[in-house]
Amino acid sequence: MTDTPPPRPPADPAFRERVTTSFAKQGLMETLGASLSAVEPGAVTIALVPGAAVTQQHGFVHAGAVSAIADSAAGYSALTLMPPGAGVLTVEFKINLLAPAAGDRIVARGRVVKAGRTLTLAQADVFAEANGAERLVAVLSATMMTIEGREGVAD
Amino acid sequence: MTDTPPPRPPADPAFRERVTTSFAKQGLMETLGASLSAVEPGAVTIALVPGAAVTQQHGFVHAGAVSAIADSAAGYSALTLMPPGAGVLTVEFKINLLAPAAGDRIVARGRVVKAGRTLTLAQADVFAEANGAERLVAVLSATMMTIEGREGVAD
Amino acid sequence: MTDTPPPRPPADPAFRERVTTSFAKQGLMETLGASLSAVEPGAVTIALVPGAAVTQQHGFVHAGAVSAIADSAAGYSALTLMPPGAGVLTVEFKINLLAPAAGDRIVARGRVVKAGRTLTLAQADVFAEANGAERLVAVLSATMMTIEGREGVAD
Amino acid sequence: MTDTPPPRPPADPAFRERVTTSFAKQGLMETLGASLSAVEPGAVTIALVPGAAVTQQHGFVHAGAVSAIADSAAGYSALTLMPPGAGVLTVEFKINLLAPAAGDRIVARGRVVKAGRTLTLAQADVFAEANGAERLVAVLSATMMTIEGREGVAD
Repeated sequence: MTDTPPPRPPADPAFRERVTTSFAKQGLMETLGASLSAVEPGAVTIALVPGAAVTQQHGFVHAGAVSAIADSAAGYSALTLMPPGAGVLTVEFKINLLAPAAGDRIVARGRVVKAGRTLTLAQADVFAEANGAERLVAVLSATMMTIEGREGVAD
Repeated sequence: MTDTPPPRPPADPAFRERVTTSFAKQGLMETLGASLSAVEPGAVTIALVPGAAVTQQHGFVHAGAVSAIADSAAGYSALTLMPPGAGVLTVEFKINLLAPAAGDRIVARGRVVKAGRTLTLAQADVFAEANGAERLVAVLSATMMTIEGREGVAD
Repeated sequence: MTDTPPPRPPADPAFRERVTTSFAKQGLMETLGASLSAVEPGAVTIALVPGAAVTQQHGFVHAGAVSAIADSAAGYSALTLMPPGAGVLTVEFKINLLAPAAGDRIVARGRVVKAGRTLTLAQADVFAEANGAERLVAVLSATMMTIEGREGVAD
Repeated sequence: MTDTPPPRPPADPAFRERVTTSFAKQGLMETLGASLSAVEPGAVTIALVPGAAVTQQHGFVHAGAVSAIADSAAGYSALTLMPPGAGVLTVEFKINLLAPAAGDRIVARGRVVKAGRTLTLAQADVFAEANGAERLVAVLSATMMTIEGREGVAD
């Protein structure tokens, strides 16, 4: 979206370590075999290798697994721009599934569209890589909330 | 929604076995430790026990895991009303997360709002059970598609 | 949704007048010929009479007009439970359009699903009345925000 | 979204006239004072001048009016790629409202993300123009359906 202004600079110089440490605490990401591929200010990428552990009934990657990495990619994109000590929670997201998710790797690229004081809009595009090409399989838009001063909810 | 007309009768008398068999093929459900609690015409319930394997960074059940069981509950609700041989795919869903998902058990109750020939709208309410009480933690609305005559996409 | 706890009592005893006065300021509602049918704590109904002024290209009521009354019904449902002086703004909504909106009257019934301090989830069901019967034509789910202390944003 | 492949070429060489003629039948667009700004294959822009006829209670452009032009922009983007004789209907959309819609002009830029045989995903970004600058105020994602052979539903 070339018309969108660039995201504001990160509020926390330690954004990369912060996302990495938080990601390591997401038990679900380990369970799904997902990994953090890139962490930039306002943009985070998470990837998943399809396998029997994440399928739906036809053998494709389950919409829930696609949603999980897309939601995490969007949420961590938002977190990179939040003040130190704040935590991120997903308020809502919508995902459109455009094609069956299958191939060598499923990659969710999250980015901040608009960062506000309380709410941030982030989107993620999800691609399936197969035979060296990639295909858009899903798009997600999410409202993320900055949580401050709530015990147990940091990063 | 008392104003909604009741869902039409199931097209397939074997709807219960059909859902059970299809659910068993969803590798993700086994990975998440989710189980099928109830299968009725136009209504399916799926439950999950919170644990380290499904958490996000603050220790709550990850929005992706909540979405996974809510999407499956909604999708199988739709499948109960589809003609024999047809398959169900999720076109899109939106989920609002109302409270952290934590407790003894997370239960997603799906139901068909309107079943059409090609598209079905299904919703799911997700509850967290703790200390004998339950609390609404998420609501999902999804568009499901009836797929006919595509190889590999049945049930 | 019989499992949903009842909405909390209204914070403002003057909720009915408050909604009525605010509704009268919505120029769009007058433009669309929409009217306020019912205002209860956590539940507001808005109706519209189909006509040439609100159509899309096939002669049905435009999805934008359906959305407008559904969004207002959901937003005012939320407002009935907000503290005096607070204003309501829509953060996001999703609408599924189930059948062409046509008939004698289009009625959007909004209700609060969960009222929080900052964010409220509200839903609206939209019905088309024709020949004495009504048919569900759309369902909307919306995140509403309580705005306090911002000049010009009350009610 | 630089990763998205370009939309397929339009199926109907008369796409521009088709959209223009259909738009002229949308009574709601005339009622809102909206106009068609650009029609390209897979991309349509619609604009609105804010005024008392389209406000919500705080004087901003109503979310319903923003949604109406965004939905039409998305839907007509999809229509440019549909076969002659087919009609377009909105299945669902979600809109995130990022900032109050106010200014000299509100512009909704729709584009096709993926065109399928039955369903098309289209998005629209909505900008508010004021003092020569523009600001992103809303983003919409919509599922559009190609309708063939249904009387009264063409274009």
